[in-house]
Amino acid sequence: MGDVMADKLSDAARETSMNELTRWSLDGDRDAISRQFVFKDFVEAFGFMSQCALIAERLNHHPEWSNIYKTVTVTLTTHDCDGLSELDIKLARAMDRISDKYS
Amino acid sequence: MGDVMADKLSDAARETSMNELTRWSLDGDRDAISRQFVFKDFVEAFGFMSQCALIAERLNHHPEWSNIYKTVTVTLTTHDCDGLSELDIKLARAMDRISDKYS
Amino acid sequence: MGDVMADKLSDAARETSMNELTRWSLDGDRDAISRQFVFKDFVEAFGFMSQCALIAERLNHHPEWSNIYKTVTVTLTTHDCDGLSELDIKLARAMDRISDKYS
Amino acid sequence: MGDVMADKLSDAARETSMNELTRWSLDGDRDAISRQFVFKDFVEAFGFMSQCALIAERLNHHPEWSNIYKTVTVTLTTHDCDGLSELDIKLARAMDRISDKYS
Repeated sequence: MGDVMADKLSDAARETSMNELTRWSLDGDRDAISRQFVFKDFVEAFGFMSQCALIAERLNHHPEWSNIYKTVTVTLTTHDCDGLSELDIKLARAMDRISDKYS
Repeated sequence: MGDVMADKLSDAARETSMNELTRWSLDGDRDAISRQFVFKDFVEAFGFMSQCALIAERLNHHPEWSNIYKTVTVTLTTHDCDGLSELDIKLARAMDRISDKYS
Repeated sequence: MGDVMADKLSDAARETSMNELTRWSLDGDRDAISRQFVFKDFVEAFGFMSQCALIAERLNHHPEWSNIYKTVTVTLTTHDCDGLSELDIKLARAMDRISDKYS
Repeated sequence: MGDVMADKLSDAARETSMNELTRWSLDGDRDAISRQFVFKDFVEAFGFMSQCALIAERLNHHPEWSNIYKTVTVTLTTHDCDGLSELDIKLARAMDRISDKYS
């Protein structure tokens, strides 16, 4: 990924992105976004994670995430810029799209 | 899995199952069923495989399958009974259900 | 899994198990065990998770776990008995065995 | 991936690569290489596939592969150049490295 993609978002870009990503919330204590995904069972939850892992590896940008049975909780931030970048927005969009298949 | 699940299907049970599994076809040369699944891309194809793998491991009954990019081709048969058993029908149903999420 | 496997461990059985699982530690605040696994990169970390997921599904007993890039942190407990059971010990052993391949 | 990586290998480069990849064989009927991997069980075989899938997605270059229980058979070729390219060599090396962990 080029430098631009990992640059910290401007305030305007952050606002536009958060208006689009309505199911994600800004973390209070650091510049990051989070969403909880709930599936039918472990098989669906891990199937979701497997697809997201492939996309994360392609973007070379990885989530912080945890899983308990059918629930997956994701936090996205970009360590290189110590905050939110376009990479986080891309990965959040992809995760929304994948999880929407299961609803 | 108990013995009964891995027993060879009777002709009547085979016919009933094949009437239900309309997207699977009987192999000509051995007592097995096959289906080809086509997805949008590799990420979806491998996400499908990851979910099927979990179910196969739970059933302790595994597919013969191949993957080329967005295509997954599956053959199911039960080696223990040298033919089709209820395990194949269960796995075929689960694969149909998982793949239907992506259509 | 039968009832016995999910029964709460006796104090003696807990002690024997913890003597064997030297890389796991008992949680202070609840009857659970935890271990952190560190791999070379995300590919190895997620490969480890994929194998553990298959075993968890076969046992019908799932971990609480989180992943950040090359690190996987696992907590095991059995909700049905509100504490540690033989299922947790089995899953911990399997995770140790899988991760040892990467060292 | 740039153009060069997907260019057809010269005869000299092909020979050098095949001397290095001693466990892969050239297909007789088309410009491709194949290797069969045998693991301990399905969990290891699919763990191997999960890691290879991540690397394939990162390279945007995917294998043709099949799996029967503990066996994974892989064929690599580059459709864009109708033959072997540096991408195939890279993926073959990565697969060797991953599978060597299990031996």
